[in-house]
Amino acid sequence: MNPLEGFEFDRILSEDITTRTINLLGTLPAPDDPSKRLPAVLRLEKTALPKESASVLATQVLTDFSILDHNDVYSWITARTRLPAKDEATAIPADWKLYLICPASPQHISKYSEQARFFVRETPSLYETVTKKWIESIPPKRIEWVYNILEGKKEQESIVFDDKDPELGFVLLPDSKWDRQNPHSLYLQVIVRRRDVRSLRDLTSAHAQFLKHIRSTIKKVVPATFVYVKPEELNIFVHYQPSYYHFHIHVTHIRGPSTGQHHLLDDIIENIELSESYYQRRVLVFPLGVEHPLYKAMEEADPIREFLNS
Amino acid sequence: MNPLEGFEFDRILSEDITTRTINLLGTLPAPDDPSKRLPAVLRLEKTALPKESASVLATQVLTDFSILDHNDVYSWITARTRLPAKDEATAIPADWKLYLICPASPQHISKYSEQARFFVRETPSLYETVTKKWIESIPPKRIEWVYNILEGKKEQESIVFDDKDPELGFVLLPDSKWDRQNPHSLYLQVIVRRRDVRSLRDLTSAHAQFLKHIRSTIKKVVPATFVYVKPEELNIFVHYQPSYYHFHIHVTHIRGPSTGQHHLLDDIIENIELSESYYQRRVLVFPLGVEHPLYKAMEEADPIREFLNS
Repeated sequence: MNPLEGFEFDRILSEDITTRTINLLGTLPAPDDPSKRLPAVLRLEKTALPKESASVLATQVLTDFSILDHNDVYSWITARTRLPAKDEATAIPADWKLYLICPASPQHISKYSEQARFFVRETPSLYETVTKKWIESIPPKRIEWVYNILEGKKEQESIVFDDKDPELGFVLLPDSKWDRQNPHSLYLQVIVRRRDVRSLRDLTSAHAQFLKHIRSTIKKVVPATFVYVKPEELNIFVHYQPSYYHFHIHVTHIRGPSTGQHHLLDDIIENIELSESYYQRRVLVFPLGVEHPLYKAMEEADPIREFLNS
Repeated sequence: MNPLEGFEFDRILSEDITTRTINLLGTLPAPDDPSKRLPAVLRLEKTALPKESASVLATQVLTDFSILDHNDVYSWITARTRLPAKDEATAIPADWKLYLICPASPQHISKYSEQARFFVRETPSLYETVTKKWIESIPPKRIEWVYNILEGKKEQESIVFDDKDPELGFVLLPDSKWDRQNPHSLYLQVIVRRRDVRSLRDLTSAHAQFLKHIRSTIKKVVPATFVYVKPEELNIFVHYQPSYYHFHIHVTHIRGPSTGQHHLLDDIIENIELSESYYQRRVLVFPLGVEHPLYKAMEEADPIREFLNS
């Protein structure tokens, strides 16, 4: 059965050249009335290369070779995937992963649509007058899921480590981005117990001991729990802007996913020790989508758009 | 003609889960004497999804669907690539890119082999006693290619912009990582004319005007040359450690390739303006392969391995 039977392509919503992913908009016939068409968002993603199939990949999967160029010992070649026979299908893994949303709402479509993203410059005064107000306007309900975890109401079976000290304590648990299998895609999240730190901007030298306590605990607990990872392989970082405003820290493997806007916990500790109000005095530069409410708030507050230029 | 005819798989050298790349070691029969076998390094890489083929991809390429799960409007599906008929082959792009090195030398094999990488902590004193000495021991011949560009002897046809001022000047040219086609994979390099800055560690507040001059020039020149990119879409950053010790700056698109160890030029300028000897006083943390000569030098100088722990 072909779940894309009758799919009609409309347009590309977005693409990601690094992860070989593309999001399309199209339509599918309604199951109960094929004369009616439903909007459908379709994400096409090439699968990662499984180590177990490496030998099969090189010797059985490829066909239709075309040699692009050749220089000394080096050759550049393109090839196609041969469709496996029925009995081979378990040895030759599927090469596409699809994610289909149908019928797709306007919110779904906008979520997967490309939006322009720009580097913005958040000066201390722009933080005080715009960002802080915007953060304070976010309904508290949005981080109730965080309090549910901290209060032991949700996701308790997932918790890897729980430090119950009200000042220094935190909960360590897997991030939803981790498949919980591949050691290199390890992804954990540290959610702190104290509720008075919204983001990087609130950290001062007074937090150095607190952050060092978290760092040394993570470096002990994570390698003890996930024995394939060493303390010096842990990538411990913070996002600014974060996706929610209750202080949290990301923990990944040094070979794992990494994006541009990381602030290493090590760097943060260094900075607040060098200069006590470092994060209150710094212009912070970060990428921001133009559809983001914070972008819109900055644009309104700064009509000459100084937040975009330096 | 199949360039992998007779390929025998030996082992996986390394893999990259993000870019869907895997490096294999195997052997191929020698062209002049098929009884002899030659070592071969084979990189298998899934191609990126070309926008032009999006409609073809969704409607013609996929087959062998398998629905993994289904919840409300969401479905997760795997699929395979149908091998196109001869006359379709131009519309349906090749799905693999191969890079073959044969015969591969031990150096080739080691270059593509996975090595353990750890976060190291370079204190100011470790920089002074180990890193600086190691940098000074690198034969000057290694950066002759840089001087060839600056002196107008090589790659002159590629130069995008040339600021000839001996103090503030720089050359702007495409990086070899850029295909020079996809706007999102834009990758340029700024090589400064002055020869007294090896890396981030040499920058002080005295360089603020120099760096600001480069920043403002790039933000004017790049969007004027590559008209699809806006100044606020430029990701301008420095690596530490860099791959060569003559000060240079990377310029990419905000949607383009990004790795963890970026120091934004904006952040660098902020830091030296906040504190004049910021980069001389900071512990700098960065990932380093254990086969890297700098790693070995650090290990020798610090037998209790404090450079690994915090």
